[in-house]
Formats: sequence, C-alpha cells, structure tokens
Amino acid sequence: MKQPEFLLSELAQLLGTELHGNGDLKIKGLATLQNAQADQLGFLANPAYKGHLETTKAGAVILSPAVAGEFSGNALVAPNPYLAYAKASHLFDAYAGFEPGIHPSAVIDEQASVDALASIGPNVVIEAGASIAAGVRIDAGCVVGRDSRIGADSRLCANVTVTHGIVIGERVYINSGAVIGSDGFGHANEKGHWHKIAQIGGVVIEDDVEIGSNTTIDRGALDDTVIKQGARLDNLIQIAHNVVIGEHTAIAGCVGISGSTRIGKHCTIAGGAGLVGHIEVADGSHISGMTMVTKSITEPGSYSSGTGAHMPTRDWKRQVVRLRQLDDMSSRVKQLEKQLAELKSEE
Amino acid sequence: MKQPEFLLSELAQLLGTELHGNGDLKIKGLATLQNAQADQLGFLANPAYKGHLETTKAGAVILSPAVAGEFSGNALVAPNPYLAYAKASHLFDAYAGFEPGIHPSAVIDEQASVDALASIGPNVVIEAGASIAAGVRIDAGCVVGRDSRIGADSRLCANVTVTHGIVIGERVYINSGAVIGSDGFGHANEKGHWHKIAQIGGVVIEDDVEIGSNTTIDRGALDDTVIKQGARLDNLIQIAHNVVIGEHTAIAGCVGISGSTRIGKHCTIAGGAGLVGHIEVADGSHISGMTMVTKSITEPGSYSSGTGAHMPTRDWKRQVVRLRQLDDMSSRVKQLEKQLAELKSEE
Amino acid sequence: MKQPEFLLSELAQLLGTELHGNGDLKIKGLATLQNAQADQLGFLANPAYKGHLETTKAGAVILSPAVAGEFSGNALVAPNPYLAYAKASHLFDAYAGFEPGIHPSAVIDEQASVDALASIGPNVVIEAGASIAAGVRIDAGCVVGRDSRIGADSRLCANVTVTHGIVIGERVYINSGAVIGSDGFGHANEKGHWHKIAQIGGVVIEDDVEIGSNTTIDRGALDDTVIKQGARLDNLIQIAHNVVIGEHTAIAGCVGISGSTRIGKHCTIAGGAGLVGHIEVADGSHISGMTMVTKSITEPGSYSSGTGAHMPTRDWKRQVVRLRQLDDMSSRVKQLEKQLAELKSEE
Repeated sequence: MKQPEFLLSELAQLLGTELHGNGDLKIKGLATLQNAQADQLGFLANPAYKGHLETTKAGAVILSPAVAGEFSGNALVAPNPYLAYAKASHLFDAYAGFEPGIHPSAVIDEQASVDALASIGPNVVIEAGASIAAGVRIDAGCVVGRDSRIGADSRLCANVTVTHGIVIGERVYINSGAVIGSDGFGHANEKGHWHKIAQIGGVVIEDDVEIGSNTTIDRGALDDTVIKQGARLDNLIQIAHNVVIGEHTAIAGCVGISGSTRIGKHCTIAGGAGLVGHIEVADGSHISGMTMVTKSITEPGSYSSGTGAHMPTRDWKRQVVRLRQLDDMSSRVKQLEKQLAELKSEE
Repeated sequence: MKQPEFLLSELAQLLGTELHGNGDLKIKGLATLQNAQADQLGFLANPAYKGHLETTKAGAVILSPAVAGEFSGNALVAPNPYLAYAKASHLFDAYAGFEPGIHPSAVIDEQASVDALASIGPNVVIEAGASIAAGVRIDAGCVVGRDSRIGADSRLCANVTVTHGIVIGERVYINSGAVIGSDGFGHANEKGHWHKIAQIGGVVIEDDVEIGSNTTIDRGALDDTVIKQGARLDNLIQIAHNVVIGEHTAIAGCVGISGSTRIGKHCTIAGGAGLVGHIEVADGSHISGMTMVTKSITEPGSYSSGTGAHMPTRDWKRQVVRLRQLDDMSSRVKQLEKQLAELKSEE
Repeated sequence: MKQPEFLLSELAQLLGTELHGNGDLKIKGLATLQNAQADQLGFLANPAYKGHLETTKAGAVILSPAVAGEFSGNALVAPNPYLAYAKASHLFDAYAGFEPGIHPSAVIDEQASVDALASIGPNVVIEAGASIAAGVRIDAGCVVGRDSRIGADSRLCANVTVTHGIVIGERVYINSGAVIGSDGFGHANEKGHWHKIAQIGGVVIEDDVEIGSNTTIDRGALDDTVIKQGARLDNLIQIAHNVVIGEHTAIAGCVGISGSTRIGKHCTIAGGAGLVGHIEVADGSHISGMTMVTKSITEPGSYSSGTGAHMPTRDWKRQVVRLRQLDDMSSRVKQLEKQLAELKSEE
C-alpha cells in the first residue's frame, strides 16, 4: 500500500492550522515526538511531554499557540493540537480509501437495494429488503439481515453481523465481529422452566456512532434499543435490550449494561464497569473502572465502587478477611464509644 | 416483512387464555401498556405497573384473574400473564418463519448430511461428517465443523461458529458470533515456556438451551463441556473447558466460569460475576452481579461479593484507602477493647 | 474421524519417556485416571490425585519417577508428567492433520501470496498484498486483510478476522471469532463531540502465541500493539492499542488491558482482571482474579484487589454498608484511641 505524502504547507491548509517554518518540507508520516523521523510530523497535545520538543527528530510538530514561541523548528500551530492530530491521522491512513462496487462473491438478495456508490466486499451477504446507502463500505464476511438499513458513508469492518430490521445511521463505524441486533435476554419462567420471549423490537444506531470489535447490542423486546448520535463504544461491550445510550457518550471496553437502562449524554464509562437494569444515569456522569452501578445516578459527577488499587495478595487477603467482618467491627466500635463515654461520665 | 395480524378471539385460543370483551377486535401488534395503540395487545405482568391499566390505549390487555375484575376493557385472562405474553411474542414475530432449502452459495461437504426440511443460508459452511436435522435453521456465514450434529428445530443465527465433534440438541437457539467448541485454555509449563495441550474433549449442548451473541464455550480437555437442558446463557459469557451448567440455569452477560466448575440446576448468575475453576455451585443458588466466587457453594441461597453500590469517586477513594488498612484497624480495635477492659477492671 | 491408535512402546518413543510394563499394549485414547478404560492412557500430574492410581482402569499411566516405584501397572515414566501428557494429547487429536490446498470457494486476491503447502478453507477471504506461509491452516470464513502476513505453521480457526497490515509469526494459534487489528479506541474531543483518530499502527503477534476465541486485539494508534513470543491469551480478552504483552505471559479469560500498558514476561493474569492504561507490570508478576490494577507494578509478586470470597448476600450487604462508612469508622477509632490515652494519662 502506498504511503501518503504531503508538503507541510498542504497539511497546514488541509488541517486549517498556522504554518511556522519550511512549507516545502515533504511529510511522509505521523509519529510520536519520541519516535518521529525527519520526514514525519509529530504532535504535542499533552503539556507533560513538552520536554520531548527539545530532543525530537520530527520534521515538524503540531503544537498550541502557547508553546509555539518556544519552539524554533517547523510547526503547525493549532488551538487544539490533539484535534489537529486526529484530523491529520486520517490523511496518513494508507488504507482509508475504497472503490465502489460489489465483489462477485457477495450474495445480494434481489429484493435488497445497494447504492452504486457503496462498496460490498467478498462473501458479504445482504438479505431481502435491506438497503445500503451511497458511500457505505462493507468488508468481507459481513451479514446484513432482512429489512436492515445502513446509512450513507457508514463502514462495517469484516465479519460484522447486523440482524434483521436494524436501522443504522450515517457515518457509523462498526469494527469486526460486532453483533447488532442479537436477541435480548428475555425469558418467562413457568415452574422452573424458561420460555423464550421473542424479541420483536429493533436497534437504532444514530449518526456518527462508533462500535468496537466483538461488542454486542441486543434488539429490544418490544421497543428499540437506541445508541444516540456520536456515541463511542469500545470492544467487548454488552448492551442489553431496550438500553438507551445518550449522545456523545463514550464507553470503554468490557462494560456491561443491563436491560432498559438509560445512559445520558456526554457520559464516560471506564472499562469493566457494570450497570444493573432499569436505572438512569444523568447527563455528564463519569463512572470509573470496574464500578458496579446499582441505582440511578441523578446528578452529574464521578462515581466509583471498584476496589483498585491492588496490593500484594498476602496483604490484601488480610484486608478481605476483615472486610467480611466489617459489620461486626462497626458494632464493636460503637460499643467501645459507649463504654468510654460511661467511663468518662463516671470520673 | 408483513406484520402478523389476529382477531382477539384467535389469540385467546392460541394462547389458551380466557377472553373478556370484543373477540372480533383486530390485533396487529404487541406493546407495553404505556406505548400500546388501539390495535395492539398490552400485558400486565408486574403488579407495580397496575396504574397503567387506567391510562393505556391498548386494544386489549393480558392480565391475571386477580386484576381482571377491575378492568373494563378487552382482556385475555391468564394465570401467568408474563408467560402468556412470552407465547404471544412469537405470534407477532414477523421474522420467525423460514423456508427449508440450501442456498446455492452454501458449501456443504458431500460427506455431510442435511435434512431436506432444514434451511441453510448463504455462505454457510458445513464440513464432512456433520449432520443437520429437520427444522434446523442456519443463517448466513455460519460454520459447522467436522462431525458436529445439530438437533431438530435448532437455530444458528448468522456468523455462529460450531467447531468439530460438537453435539447440539433440539430446539437450541444460538445467537450470532457465538463460538461453540473453541480450545480450552490448557498449557503445560516447561522452564517458563508453555506447551499447548490439545483439547480432545467435546461440547454437548442439550435440548432447549439458548446461547447469547459472542459467547464462547470451550471444548473439554479430555471429557466434554456440558450445557444441560433448558439453560440460558446471555451474551459475552466465557465457559471454560469441562464446565457443566445444570438444567434450567440462567446466566447473564459478561460472566466468566473457569475450568471444570459445575453449576447446579435452577441457578441464576447475574452479570459480570466470575467463578474460579474446580468448584461446585449447589442447585438453586443465586449469585449477584460482579460477585467473585472463590469456593464451592454447598447450600442454595443468594451469594455476593460485589462492591456496588457506587458512590461519588472522591468519597469512595477515602473508603478504599481505609479498606487497604483494614487489618490494621481491626488490630487497633482489639487493642482498644483490651485497654478498656483493663481500665474498667481497675476501677 | 478415525481415532488414532498406538502401541505403548511407540508412545514411549514418541514422548521420550521410560516404558514400564507391556509395550505391546494397544492404546486408543487419553483419559483422566477416573474415566480411563483398559485401552486408554491416563496420567498423574497432580500428586493430590495419587489415590486414583489404585482404582484406575487405565491400560497405562504417565507418571513421575517418584511415584513409579509404587505403581505395578504399565507406565510411561516422565520427569514432568503433565508435559508428557501435553505432548501425548496431540498424538490423540483425531482432528489435527490437514491437507494443503485452497478450497474453490475461497476468495484469494490475485495480488495475495499463498504458499502451496498452506490450507485455505471454504469461504476464506485473503486480500491483496497478504501472504500466507507454508504449513498455515486457515479455516472456513476467516478474513485476512490487505498486506497482512501469516507465518509458517500458524492456524486460524473458523471465522477469525485479521485486518490489514498485521504481522503474525510462526506456530501462532488463533481461536474462532478472534479479531486481530480492530481500531484502537482513540477519539479527540471538541466541544463535547468526539472525532475519531485513525489508527495507523499495526499489530505484531510473535511466534508461538495462542489467542482465545472472540478475543480482540486493537491495532496501534501510531506504533504497533505487540504480543511477544510464547504468550497465551484465553477467550474474550480485550487488548487495547499499543499494549505490549511480554514473552510467555499467560492471561485468562475476560481480562481487559487498557491502552499503552506494558506487561512483562512470564506474568500470569487471572480471569476478569482489569488494568488501566499507560502502566507497566514487572516480569514475573501474578495478578489474581477480578483485580483492578491502577498503577505500575515494579516488583514481581502476587497482587490482588478482588473482593472474593463471596458470602450470603444478606450478610454481605451489611458489610458493604459499613464499607461505605469506613473512613468515618477510621476517624472514630482514632478518636477512641485519643480519648483512651487521655483517660489513662489521667490515672
């Protein structure tokens, strides 16, 4: 694959940044300040790494106006250097482009609709009633079920499964192995035996959502499961039926969200957290790693219940023994306080 | 897809419920009491929602005999309304039916056996020696490995992997992306290097089991891993080699069960719980969310070790600091008790 | 599938073990001491099971020199019986062999290179620029993306996804549903909206690595994510971008490792543990189940923060109430100590 290449002046224009230094410099890649070579562009987003500016071999550096004065090398000056780096990253992604067209091995039902400007990879299956908009790229091995719709410029990486009746917006990006629209976990119990409840709701993924690899999003029991605009889901996340994830909320890997729970917008949920069902989480909440959320969060803020940090196992085990006796210890402290108060009153 | 439609009297008969009101009413869907329209059937399973009966627009409602007297609208009266709803859900699942037959793009080894009443979707691969019974539906992209057997009326949703030598019973339902029969995690160590142990046991999935999307069930090292009749597994669950899951046990998402552990029947395990290997869990046990089970459970009951509920992170961090000093605090309390006893005896 | 069969003398030679007893015995399988039949080989690796030697029906047993004297039956004597069993397991794996060749349904780009001694299964997709070495076995439904390389004698089980530009070494074994090279979770925030950062680094999987089913390994943001030689990853593990896993480290199921964290060599991480990003874990560290690692581990040892063992839920809830008041209890204990000291000094 041919590596993209730009003049520094072209990059300044494409990224909308101010150019300091030699605009004719050829830039052939993007790298961290520590690793960048003379034909690469580095970036300084975190002030903690400012020291690297003195030693970097980068041909040019994306940096903020506050730092620009102290740096004598070539620079692209941007108010938000991390955002400028994010934009630059796409320019240097050698694998970003694609050719529209349908691979001959793809199986497209004759009652499906695929836009001429979509790209359908090898062995993709698109079932009856499904519709694929312009600019969509569906990689090898994906399955799009009956009556599902994929909006413009969305991407399904290899081996993604979209079941039937799913609505996916525009510019949605779904990583490999993700499953959108598996059955919610709904069963009625009769004398100890489970009877499956058909899950006849759907899933709505709004515009500009990203979904990680092997993440699972269940279809609703009756109403839809909804991932709202701009939300970001990492890998191996479980979204149960009828969950609603608010706009621009970001969820890290290995999180599980139980049925009918509603997460507000602009929330962040760190890795390994678990949320029970039928609760609400306020807009702007942060949930820390491996926290268990057992009731609604009504005020924005940061919430935790994970027991990190770790300590040596032998020491930790002693604490856990006491943790299991904590209520007893509490009673004994209360008793001590009472006895001491009596002693003092006797004086 | 055409939406199913029934007269209320037909539904009463199909569900085996008592009809109150207008049997000629056309019912075109199923919905919650809050969302139901005049041509839809609602249900009241949880008495907590009884208030919705007064305001619902549902054309008819499934409810219990205890409530039937208070409701003047059309009703289907059932001793277990949630079970009646479960049965009704299948009637209204527009995507439930299928045509037997083998899609021309499927790759069926000539030494495999596929019943004429099975449905094999596009790009499915069925290897030599495998057998697929009548009424089985295998959706696009599934792989059924050598010598594996799928029993009557089972369903593999799209992109399921069943490896070699696996036995799957009747009416088993496996959601997309699940892997049945991956290698157990078995390695012998020699001077710090790992040697893989070939996993030559199999997996037996008994009748009426449901398995969630992207759940993984490892094959046994020597004997089989077994999921017994009627068990229900949600998404993203890890079942290690030689685990046995008892009859009618239900396991929620993101649970991990380590090797050779045996779970009894009629257990429920909530989301995110983890069980160590080589233990047994008694019939009828409940394990709460994010609990870590480190030794056998010998008596039925509810067991926990998860640290929810969450609290504000700043407050929680103060508790965790003390948790890490808990054994020391315990010693200090003991010391206080001793000193106080001495003081009192001196009086 | 034909079950492999050996004379006991052949096994002694193939495994490099000392033969005691009847070398002409036909051995048709491998089993635990409890389950073994007269034509099967058992093994005694864990001294705790020594009692089974007296009752086993095994035709022969793999055991250590220390035990050999006490056993009068046929035996294969090996200094490390578990290792000898590991080697024997491959001899008895009826499904181990494969025929080189490309299944006609596979889609191989004309710019990909596939060695004549590789085996490419049905519906496999291999994209342009990819190269597949001799002895590689790629099972049905796998996708190997552009420019990715699979080293000699590696195996991709069914439905594995390898995205573009990935480097996989020799004798690497990847279970079904694993995703190698999904996008790292990198997003820049602008006024509450997330902008995706293209992930232009790759993944390097070194020789002799094993990866479990549905495990996800993200590609690096700029540099590579690296899994070093001989590492073992179980199922449903999340490896974020730019993580480095050291040589011969073993990680159990459901572990999540956040971005840029570096795990040393010869570490073991038990199931369900979570590690934050940008930390280092020293060579030879052990992290126990469901532990949350929030800062670097600089010395080898065993580390924990998981709250197992479980206890009855009613009792546990009382402890958790006190856990949430622990800082307050600590203050009260301090206060008690102060008051008691005052009392005593008054005496």
